[in-house]
Amino acid sequence: MPGSPQTPSPSAAYVPTDRTVPTRAAEKASYDRDLVHAILDEGYVCHLGFVRDGAPVVLPTLYGRVGERLYVHGSTGSRPLRMTGAADPGLPVCLTVTHVDGLVLARSAFHHSINYRSVVVHGTAHEVTDPEERRVALDALVDHVVPGRSADSRPANKKELAATAVIRLDLDEVSAKVRTGGANDEPEDLGLPHWAGVVPLRKGYDAPVANADLAPGIALPGYLGTL
Amino acid sequence: MPGSPQTPSPSAAYVPTDRTVPTRAAEKASYDRDLVHAILDEGYVCHLGFVRDGAPVVLPTLYGRVGERLYVHGSTGSRPLRMTGAADPGLPVCLTVTHVDGLVLARSAFHHSINYRSVVVHGTAHEVTDPEERRVALDALVDHVVPGRSADSRPANKKELAATAVIRLDLDEVSAKVRTGGANDEPEDLGLPHWAGVVPLRKGYDAPVANADLAPGIALPGYLGTL
Repeated sequence: MPGSPQTPSPSAAYVPTDRTVPTRAAEKASYDRDLVHAILDEGYVCHLGFVRDGAPVVLPTLYGRVGERLYVHGSTGSRPLRMTGAADPGLPVCLTVTHVDGLVLARSAFHHSINYRSVVVHGTAHEVTDPEERRVALDALVDHVVPGRSADSRPANKKELAATAVIRLDLDEVSAKVRTGGANDEPEDLGLPHWAGVVPLRKGYDAPVANADLAPGIALPGYLGTL
Repeated sequence: MPGSPQTPSPSAAYVPTDRTVPTRAAEKASYDRDLVHAILDEGYVCHLGFVRDGAPVVLPTLYGRVGERLYVHGSTGSRPLRMTGAADPGLPVCLTVTHVDGLVLARSAFHHSINYRSVVVHGTAHEVTDPEERRVALDALVDHVVPGRSADSRPANKKELAATAVIRLDLDEVSAKVRTGGANDEPEDLGLPHWAGVVPLRKGYDAPVANADLAPGIALPGYLGTL
């Protein structure tokens, strides 16, 4: 996706902050912009955290990216979106996207792990009210699920737009974390009689299932073949 | 997994609370214990939310289940685990597990969705200090990744145990949410020329990759064939 007009020439990396420097496994952390974008663009669902009555709430939700902005949408009646609109200075959130790439089996129980790629975004979410930005955000949310799909569906009408709240979270305080490779056992364990290695996970798609009420003569769109 | 001794005859459903009754799409919510357990047991990573300096933090982490208890572990130096130990009354958390099962393409942009199964657990996490409960929890964490694996690896030694914090979250304030089926378009949109239906997602495994330093003569364990 192209960068947004607001960030014409972003630097190649996000600036680390106290919140985005991990207390451990710092060697797995990255602030590389392209890596962060790639991890975000591959996910379908983020986990959005916010604070309600002093306690954390973590909800899975769809999202879309336009340059350095993430968008989340939902019913105007849903809790986080109501809270964003109500809170004038915005709603503090943490948005996390994780891919599990493999199961890491070590000789020692302690060194079992998973291979993964994750992005954690800290920031303040603001409700989007500008009609043009809302339109761009809603298209991005649909195209995030299936690239190109927003152009092949009926756009939201007035009633639907009125029922939909859109919130924006800028990519500013961001980090990625990546684990790859095999098991890292202690040298003295290498001779133990336990298998060690990685079971890679793979995201697969089954054949598309047409709606039962699909009108006759409508072919499967070509863009589904590229998933 | 068997129920823990503490909950010999749990009822078939969790009791809904203000936090676990959604403000919308309530028909997708469920409090069925078996459904909750099945969703939890199928996941590899949960998203654990807690509050730090008044702001939400959401981190991906491994987990394990023993009856009505969830366990998370980590370095004694990591932030949430330090906070749990420091806070005498425990750390308020929200633990969420989500599976994406399909992409739902509707004729209208508004009705695009995903098929998913999620579990959200609200509660207070407590550090586990009892050695026997810690052992059971650590085995559950390894067996959650690959069932049966904890019996085929070297258990944690004293040094490793000292470096590992375990926290427990009881399954009490819990809900599941499930979306299945095709696109739910408005009646007046059914004749639009856009394909509608579901692209199912499938979790797949590639062939296990043995560690480069695996000692000769160690065969691939049989339990990997049942993943």
